[in-house]
Parts: sequence; structure tokens; C-alpha cells
Amino acid sequence: MAKKTVQELKTIIGDFKALAMSMSSGVGGGHVGGAMSSAEYLIAGWFSKLNIPDVIDGPDWENRDRFFVGQGHITPGVYSLLVQKGYYKWQDTAGYRKYASPFQGHPDRNLLKGWEMSSGSLGQALGVAVGCALAAKLSGKTYRVATLNSDGELQEGSMWEAIMLAGARKLDNLITFIDYNRIQNYNRIEQTADIHPLTDKFRAFNWDVIEINGNDLEQVLDAYDKALVPGKGKPTVIIGHTKIGNGVSFMYDKVDYHSKAPPREDLPKGIQELGSNFPHQEYLKLADEYGKKVAGELNAKMPKFSRDYGWNKEGDTMKIALVWTGEGISAAMRTCMDKNPKVMVCTDDSHKLIGLNDKDMAKYTASNQYIDVGCAEQNMAVVSAGLAKEGFIPMGNGYTGFCIGRAYDHIRTSILTTNFNVKYFPTEGLLGGDGLLHEGLEGIALTYYLPNWHVSFPCDNIEARKASITAISEINGPVVTFQERAPKPAVTKEETPYKFGIANIIRYRGRQAQFADAFETKLSTEWKSEKADLAIIACSSMVAEAMRAAYILKEEKGIDTIVVNLHTIKPLDKAGILKAVQGVKAVITHEQHAKGGLGNIIAGVIMEGGLANAPKFKMMGVENAFGQTAKPWELIQHYGLTAEHLATTALNVLGVSA
Amino acid sequence: MAKKTVQELKTIIGDFKALAMSMSSGVGGGHVGGAMSSAEYLIAGWFSKLNIPDVIDGPDWENRDRFFVGQGHITPGVYSLLVQKGYYKWQDTAGYRKYASPFQGHPDRNLLKGWEMSSGSLGQALGVAVGCALAAKLSGKTYRVATLNSDGELQEGSMWEAIMLAGARKLDNLITFIDYNRIQNYNRIEQTADIHPLTDKFRAFNWDVIEINGNDLEQVLDAYDKALVPGKGKPTVIIGHTKIGNGVSFMYDKVDYHSKAPPREDLPKGIQELGSNFPHQEYLKLADEYGKKVAGELNAKMPKFSRDYGWNKEGDTMKIALVWTGEGISAAMRTCMDKNPKVMVCTDDSHKLIGLNDKDMAKYTASNQYIDVGCAEQNMAVVSAGLAKEGFIPMGNGYTGFCIGRAYDHIRTSILTTNFNVKYFPTEGLLGGDGLLHEGLEGIALTYYLPNWHVSFPCDNIEARKASITAISEINGPVVTFQERAPKPAVTKEETPYKFGIANIIRYRGRQAQFADAFETKLSTEWKSEKADLAIIACSSMVAEAMRAAYILKEEKGIDTIVVNLHTIKPLDKAGILKAVQGVKAVITHEQHAKGGLGNIIAGVIMEGGLANAPKFKMMGVENAFGQTAKPWELIQHYGLTAEHLATTALNVLGVSA
Repeated sequence: MAKKTVQELKTIIGDFKALAMSMSSGVGGGHVGGAMSSAEYLIAGWFSKLNIPDVIDGPDWENRDRFFVGQGHITPGVYSLLVQKGYYKWQDTAGYRKYASPFQGHPDRNLLKGWEMSSGSLGQALGVAVGCALAAKLSGKTYRVATLNSDGELQEGSMWEAIMLAGARKLDNLITFIDYNRIQNYNRIEQTADIHPLTDKFRAFNWDVIEINGNDLEQVLDAYDKALVPGKGKPTVIIGHTKIGNGVSFMYDKVDYHSKAPPREDLPKGIQELGSNFPHQEYLKLADEYGKKVAGELNAKMPKFSRDYGWNKEGDTMKIALVWTGEGISAAMRTCMDKNPKVMVCTDDSHKLIGLNDKDMAKYTASNQYIDVGCAEQNMAVVSAGLAKEGFIPMGNGYTGFCIGRAYDHIRTSILTTNFNVKYFPTEGLLGGDGLLHEGLEGIALTYYLPNWHVSFPCDNIEARKASITAISEINGPVVTFQERAPKPAVTKEETPYKFGIANIIRYRGRQAQFADAFETKLSTEWKSEKADLAIIACSSMVAEAMRAAYILKEEKGIDTIVVNLHTIKPLDKAGILKAVQGVKAVITHEQHAKGGLGNIIAGVIMEGGLANAPKFKMMGVENAFGQTAKPWELIQHYGLTAEHLATTALNVLGVSA
Repeated sequence: MAKKTVQELKTIIGDFKALAMSMSSGVGGGHVGGAMSSAEYLIAGWFSKLNIPDVIDGPDWENRDRFFVGQGHITPGVYSLLVQKGYYKWQDTAGYRKYASPFQGHPDRNLLKGWEMSSGSLGQALGVAVGCALAAKLSGKTYRVATLNSDGELQEGSMWEAIMLAGARKLDNLITFIDYNRIQNYNRIEQTADIHPLTDKFRAFNWDVIEINGNDLEQVLDAYDKALVPGKGKPTVIIGHTKIGNGVSFMYDKVDYHSKAPPREDLPKGIQELGSNFPHQEYLKLADEYGKKVAGELNAKMPKFSRDYGWNKEGDTMKIALVWTGEGISAAMRTCMDKNPKVMVCTDDSHKLIGLNDKDMAKYTASNQYIDVGCAEQNMAVVSAGLAKEGFIPMGNGYTGFCIGRAYDHIRTSILTTNFNVKYFPTEGLLGGDGLLHEGLEGIALTYYLPNWHVSFPCDNIEARKASITAISEINGPVVTFQERAPKPAVTKEETPYKFGIANIIRYRGRQAQFADAFETKLSTEWKSEKADLAIIACSSMVAEAMRAAYILKEEKGIDTIVVNLHTIKPLDKAGILKAVQGVKAVITHEQHAKGGLGNIIAGVIMEGGLANAPKFKMMGVENAFGQTAKPWELIQHYGLTAEHLATTALNVLGVSA
């Protein structure tokens, strides 16, 4: 590989940023700000200082330097890097963050050429890199291991586990660059848990420290030289002071641009400021075409009926509003905080994920009802435990895999065994579209089998508000209330009955102007058994699909369906389930989770219930797969979970010809 | 509270240690070494420097200083402290670490008087304390928060999350003492991930640091004074250099005495060296009486049959050896490491938990096949991922809740989504007797619903060896092989058929001299269906109970039972399950886990299998409870999971009078 001159590197940096910005604009998402702040380190390493071959799997490949990125969310940078390197053409990346593209929201090792590791759940890649550096030492290999990590990652405890081990084992084949841009997802880092002073911290963990302006290419090149001196007996960290969105005036050092895509109208100005000739308009065109193509393909694969029963597709009947469940949850949080000063937010730089805004943050900080612990999910759990012990009612949130999964043992030990009054509102314990790390499809199994949890999965925004108010102000103990990621059909109304722990039984009664008016809903305890062919048991927005399936089945085939809205999963309304399935010919469980997470629980209830004539039984769900990046509806189509799929499955199970 | 003089405090310290040692000797377990190294800090705080009232719930209680212990395993110290304080009589603690005692292996807030918090999963209590200190700041209260933490805990990342937040939020109402005795469970700390230099670390995290000889009472008293100066604007850490087993010559600074109980014969010498008059012989007598009493009560509650079918209770027939599954697993590990230099141990200070010894550690360290990352379960997962990426086959272990639960997101993201070739051998994903933190009763649900895991729960030591060899050397991908904690009935033989992923069908064929010879075992694929009344589906040593139940049912009532040994839970042998239950009148699932973890999966298989005549169905397991400290067999009795309970349940389900 010919080393590039400084001027050549600068040109690559401009093109690198131009493509990264275009990717982000093209999909209206992705985290390009941190890709731009770390550009000098990436390009200097990949094109000058590290041994990264131009040809994948060529003769130099085995001994290549390994490269890891901890803040996997900066995929516009990761993918642009692979394009600049020649591993991909820029046109290949047109599907960025869209359905069925290898260019997922976070880098996926299984889908990419020339990329070492999947990452994006913060604070993990450095430990993988430590394992990789240890592997070199154990097997006498000479490759070096370089990582890029974000400042926010340093709030994650597992970073310090890896930093401690690397120092203790004197891994001098490891270098790390901290992209110290001081901005995390929704805050400046000093507002959550400040990481200053970084130099002292790394020195105290037995690392060699180089501190530079990380956006000054010459300083970065020089730092690489100092870091890569062999035989130091220590790992090296380059602390790079940088700026989010560096190189483009309207993005520079702006908190918003941690996760905001450059608006399409601003893109030309940005590209111009970067001095790049990248054909961004052509890129946007390809991106739009890609999106249309995959949407068309998914729609073409949908089961067909005599007419299109899709949401809001039927002219002037069966209309429905689409509303995000986060609106219901955040409204409940505000109501409860305003009423009770002991109710408080304890978040991990995620308030906007739950529908709270910066005004809320300011207001409840002032009233001593708000704390942000930074990117530290385990600490969020135990700090919440301490707050709850002293009488506060803390409300935590974040993505399911992180706030629940990563803090699993902390929640179990310090909240559940003590039955502390802590509330969690995780995002995406289902198909949410943010990719395999964020979509905790196993969320039900993860919570249901642990004593003391109450588990709730509301079906829409109104039910989410009711469920959240119950969770916060009526239940004394730990409650997890899962929420959706996108606007979903508002199938319940203010007057729809709701009782925590009691399932709702929903029956289709005939077409109406408003979808919600076409159904009658009763608490299972109030419902008088009715003869029906089929029962569908669901939670979350899959209840809306189940209702729509009931509508399709009645309209198309005269089939009567009982829909069970199992909004509360723990405690489980076993009596309601058994009442609903009594006498039906078939039962289908319908979940946008790992198949069986809900379905097996229902099967256990029915089997132990000992029905005289066991109904046919089918579980629908995501079969042995992680989530992926796409629009949530596209994933529901992909995994065969729409009402159309459900109705088709019902016909099969009932033995009715389609 | 009258403050004590230095001499009075020294007397209390002697008595404190004498009772703690007696507790440990009495049960032959517990971690008294660390209780002795931290005695000066505990006694100086509780009897002189902190505001800890003598009367619980009295007028001073609300504003008491809060006190937390991170290394919850030092319960001989915790309970002795509560006794010295007068909250309990020493006689109360005679049930220490025994069945049904409030004095569990780790302190349980729900069971204790005057104790703030459950703890023992390392690195959590400091975060709870931070929450508690924040609560005081938010609500304008003046109590202080003091913690005792171990040096080993500082290897846990979540400690640094808590330390970072405490520094960033300037929590000057928080003081922490690090019991820096340099010994962790099975190693000196510098052998795993050295934490030196501690002073620099805490300063770099914005704490005030006081460094002392932590076993010098005067220095401790002085440090408290300096730490508790109000208005510092910083939390304070006292780094106390101490010695394990301080005060008793034969325990002093010995690695063994982290977790070893003083032998009863050495106890008098120890008590004498401490200058205490504690009536240790009387204590031991009470402890023995307690143990006999609870064992007698549990035995009295057992279902009765025409004779005693208990293990090895039948004179000269149906003999069985009891062997720990760890012997099978560690034998497999050695075999695989000796054969393939890429197979290696990557443990978290837990090698002895899996049956490896210090000789193994030395041998495989020398052959570059051994790494100990210290108490850092998340890092164990990601370091293993890095090693696997480079072609190693790392084998991790530890308690289920920690090595699997605490590293949940790290395993999910960095091992499972990438399908890396990492093997886990967790201890106590079942009733193991080490208490509610260690017994991961939800272990099946925790792993089954995640893609790419292979999940195995062998029934005895021989099957454990076969399963482990398959896991390590035949499967290319992540495998979890759960193990038992105590010696268990060796119900299989070398020649018993075994195939990963295929259930074994076991039939009782008539009494024999050796229990294992009384049964015929076939792979489900080889088995020719036989008529039977009942099928019992089990994994782990519950297979042995199921076999014994089959024996009891045949001998007592002529009932024919098919026992399904579902040693592999993922991939699931659905065909085998359906074949086994075809035609039986009843199915019982039998697990020493959270009820339904296995049972609901089986219910789903049977329901989806669509049997013409659905059998009656009953799940046995632990219902909505955490584990507890006791002998494993006592817990199996307590939760009604013995063969006798199983046979009784079968009679009920089948409608046969007992």
C-alpha cells in the first residue's frame, strides 16, 4: 500500500465526509456528526499509519492491523471509510439504514466485507480489541490493534474493565483514540457524568497517554507515530479533542448533530464547504430508488384478499390515527411527576427516546425530579435502587437490550430481589427498526421469569398512558412497560376499559367510519363468552394487527375471531385466557418478538388449563433471528406479522381455503 | 449513642471476629477472611464515627447514616456486626448459611433487621449508595452514606460508573472504604487484573483520597474524621491496606481464607489469639442443632410411600454414586486443551468453580491457554469474543447470574450476533444452594430465546463430560453448558447413548443392584414407541429424580413412565418430545428452575404438535421465587421437586389414589 501524502489524505477526508453526509441525508438518520469528528484518525490510520491492505483476503490480510470502532452508530463514517478504501463502490451504500441492506444502522460483521467486528452497544468493542491484542501475544503474532472510541463510551463501566485489563497485561500492541467531542446523544457530556480529567484516568490505569487536537491531521499523524513505537510495555491512548460535524459550519459542535441527519437542502452547502466533488445529488437519487424498490418488493409479497385492508387504505371508512406510544408514556410521566414530587426521571442520556424533551429536562431538574447518569445502564439500575430505597419513584428508560439486558444482574439483585419501587419504560422490546442490537426481541422472556417484575406491553398510545399511570402511581414494586418505536394504530379510546392484570377481549362488530368504533372491548372478567372460530392472543401493536385480521376474516370468510389484548403479561390473566379460548377451533399467538416468548407462556396456560377439546395452536413471531435496520412496518412485513399474514395463517390452521 | 473508647472498640473487634469465625466454622463455609480484614472500619464506624442508632426504628432512625457493604459475601462480618450492635443475639445466628435462616450466605434486606441493602453481586452496592446519597441531596436530608467495598470489586466496571457519577455530582455526603487486602476468591489480585495504583485512580475520578493501614484502628478513626468533614465538595475514599484473616496467625494473608472456613479444631486457637471470651463451642453446638432440626423438619414433610426410596437408602439394591458435574466438565476441558492449543480458559477468578485447580491454572498459563480477567464478567465476554475472532476457542465460567446475566448484552452483541465460537459453563442455573443472587433459576429463559446459542443442561457428571467435549470440539458456535453445584446421582454410564440435540428416552426395567442398571436408555430417534401412562420431561439432575419417580410409580402402583432426558434444550428435539408424549395420559415437566422456563417450551411443542388426544399437563418448578442459601437437596425438598413429590403429583394428575 502506497502511503498517502498529507494533501492526499486531506482530499480523502473531504470525500469521506461528503459521502457520509450524503448517506445520512439520504435516509434522514444515522449519526454522521461523530463520523466527522473522528475523520482524521480514521483516514490517517487507514491510509497512512496502519497496515490495512487494499485487497481483502490477499497475502497481507492475515497480518493486517485490526481496527475496531466502539461507537458503532457512526456508520456513515464506517461505510464511507470502506468505500474510500475501495472495498465498496459508493453506489453500493445507497441502501444505507434501509431494509435488507448490508449497510445497517450499526456495522454488522456478518454482512460486511473487510470489517472486523459488529459494534454499537457502547463500551464493548474495546474489550473485543483487548481480546484480539491478547490473542496476538498468546500466539506470537505481530499485528497491532487500533480502536476508535467515543467519549460517551467512557461512561460505560465495561470500558474501564477493558482499560484495566489492557494496562495490567501491558498490551503495547493496542492503541485507542478517544473522540473527545464532548457531545453525546442528547446532551453535552458534562451535563450527565463528566469524564474529565481523562489524561489522569488513563495514566492511573497504566496507559501511555498522548493528548492532541484530534481534528489536526498533522497532530494525528504524529500521535500515531508515537503510539506505534514498539516495545513500550503499555497500551497507548490518544485523547483527541475534536468537534462534532467538523468541517461543515452548520453542524460544527452542535448537540443536535450527534444524531441528526443534515437536511437535504443543506447538503450542497456542506459538501461545498468540504471542498469535495462527491455527486451527492446522484447519491440521493439512488437512495430514494433503493427505498422505493424494497418497499415495492415487500408489498408485492403481501398476501392478497378481495380488497386492500391496509391501514387507512379504504377510502372513507375504517380510518385510524397513527400515534407513537411514547406520547402516552411521557404524558403519564409528566402527570405523575407534577402530582407527586417523589416521582422522578433517572435516565441514561435517553430522555428523548421516551418522548420527554429538553424543556421537561430543565423543568424537572429544577424541581429535583430528574437525573441523567450518562451512558451507564448498570449504574442507572443501582442508582434507581438507592433512590427508591429512600422513597423516590425513579423512572428509567433506554433501548431494551441496554437498559434491561445490560443491567440484567443489577436489576435482578438490587431492584427485584428487594422489590424496590422502580419503573422502566424500555424502547424496542420488539421490531423497532433500529437494528439487531437495539431490538430486544427476547424482552418478554427476559422479564417474565424473574420474580417481582410486573410486565406490561400496551397496544397503543392511549393504553400506554393508562398503563404508565398505573405502573407509576398504583403499583408499589418494579414495573416494566415496553414501548413501540414508531407511530402505531390508535385502536383504543379513552373510554375503552382498562385494568392492569386483566386482559381485554375484543370483538369485531361491523365496519365503521372509524376503525376503533368497529370493535367492542370488554375486560375478560366482564365479558360474556361468545361462540367463535378462532382466538388470537397478542400484545403491543400486534393487537392492532390481530383486530385487522379479525376484520379481514369476518369480511372475507365470515369467520368469527376473539382477539385477546394481553397488555399485561405479568401477572398473567390465566382465567381470561382460558375463558377466551374455550370452544374455539384454533388459537394463534401473535407477537413481534422471539417466537414463543409470549406464545409458549400461553401454551403452558392452555395445557395446564386442561381444555376438554384442545384447539389447534399456532405461534407467530420472529423465528430464531435478531432484528434489523428498516422501517418498523417493513420488518413486520418481512417477518410475516401483518394482519394479512395473520389472516392467511388462520385460514390455514382452520383448514379454510384462501 | 455513647461513643466508645479505643480500648472498648478493640474489645468489640475481638468479639466481632470471634463470632464471625464461629459462624464460618459452624457451617463450614462463608467468607470470614474479608470480614476480619475490614473489622476496624466496620467497628469504628458503627460504634464511634457514624450515626448508627442502637435502637432500630427509634427517633434517630430516619436520619441515621446509611451503610452499605459491596462484598456481600462477608456475611460472618455483617451478622456479627448486627449482633455486636445489639440488633440480634449471637444465638439467633446459629442458622447461618443454613436452610430457612434469615442469615443467608449474602445479606438479604428482606430478612434482616437494621440492614440497608441486599448485596453480594459485586460492584452494585456502591451505585445504590450513590443513589442514596443523591436522594439526600435532592430531598435536603443530612444523613451521610458510608460504604465498605472490596478491592476485587474494583475490577467490576459498574464500580467505575458509580465512582464517576459520584465524583461528577460532587457527592460529599458519601464515604467509601476499600478493603485493599489484595486477595480475591481464588487468586492474589495482581494475578488477574491488577488495580494498582488506586490513589491515582480515585483522584482522577474526582474523589478525595485518604490512604492508611486499614487494620490500624487509630488510623481508621482518624481517617473517618478527615472523611466526614462537611462541605468538601467531593466524595471521599479511604484506601485501607489490610490483611485477610487479620488477628489470627493461621489465617493471616492466606489466599485460601478468602472463602475457607476455619476448621473447627483450629477455632479455639483463633479465638484465643483474638483475646475474646466468645463461647464458640456453645455456638457450634447450636449451629449443629439448627442444621439437624431443619433437616428433620424437611424430611418429616416428605411424601411417604410403602418404603423409603431415597438415594442409597435401600440396603443392598439400587446403589448410586454421587458425583459433581464439574468433574465431568473440567475433565472435558483438560482433554480438549491438551488436544488443541487453541482451546483455552478465559475465566473471571472462578476456575475452581468449574473443577479446575491451581495446577491446571499454572499448566495452561504456561501453554498460553489460560487467562483470568478478574471480577469482570462483561469483559470476560468481550475478551472471549476477541480471542474467538482470532481463532481461539475460549471457555468462560462463573455463576449463572453473573457470567451470563451480568454480561447479557455483551454476550448478545459481541458473541451471539457474530456467532463466535465461545463456550460457557455456568454454575447454578438451578437450585445450587448459594443463595438468591447466585442461583440463576431463570437460566433457560435467559438463553433459549436468543438466536445462535446452543443450550445444554446435562443430567450427571458423565453426561456433562460428553456434552462438554461436544460443545468444545464439535460445535462451531456459542454453547452454554449449565452445571450443578453439588454431587448428584450418576445415572448414566459411559456406554449410555448420547447425541447433542437428541433427547434420551429412559424406561425403568426392574430393580437392580445398581440404580443405573435398572433403566434402559435410547436416543429418541432409536427408541421404538412403547405404551405408557405418563411422560416426565426433565433436564439437569432432575432427570435422576424423574427416574426415581418412575421407579416409585412402577413399584407402588404399576404405573409405566417414560422419562425424557432433555439434556439439549437448544436446538430442541421437538420430534423426540412429540414421540415420547404420544399416547400417554399425562405429561409432567420437571425443572429446578423458574417454573415454565422449560415447561412452557414443552407446552408450546405439544400444542403446536397438535396431538389428537391432548394429555393432561403439569409443570413442576420453582414458582415465582428466587433461590436461597441451603444444601441443594434441602432446596429440592423445599420447592417440592424430589422424586417423592414428583410421584405424588403424577398420582394426582392421573387420578390414582396415593
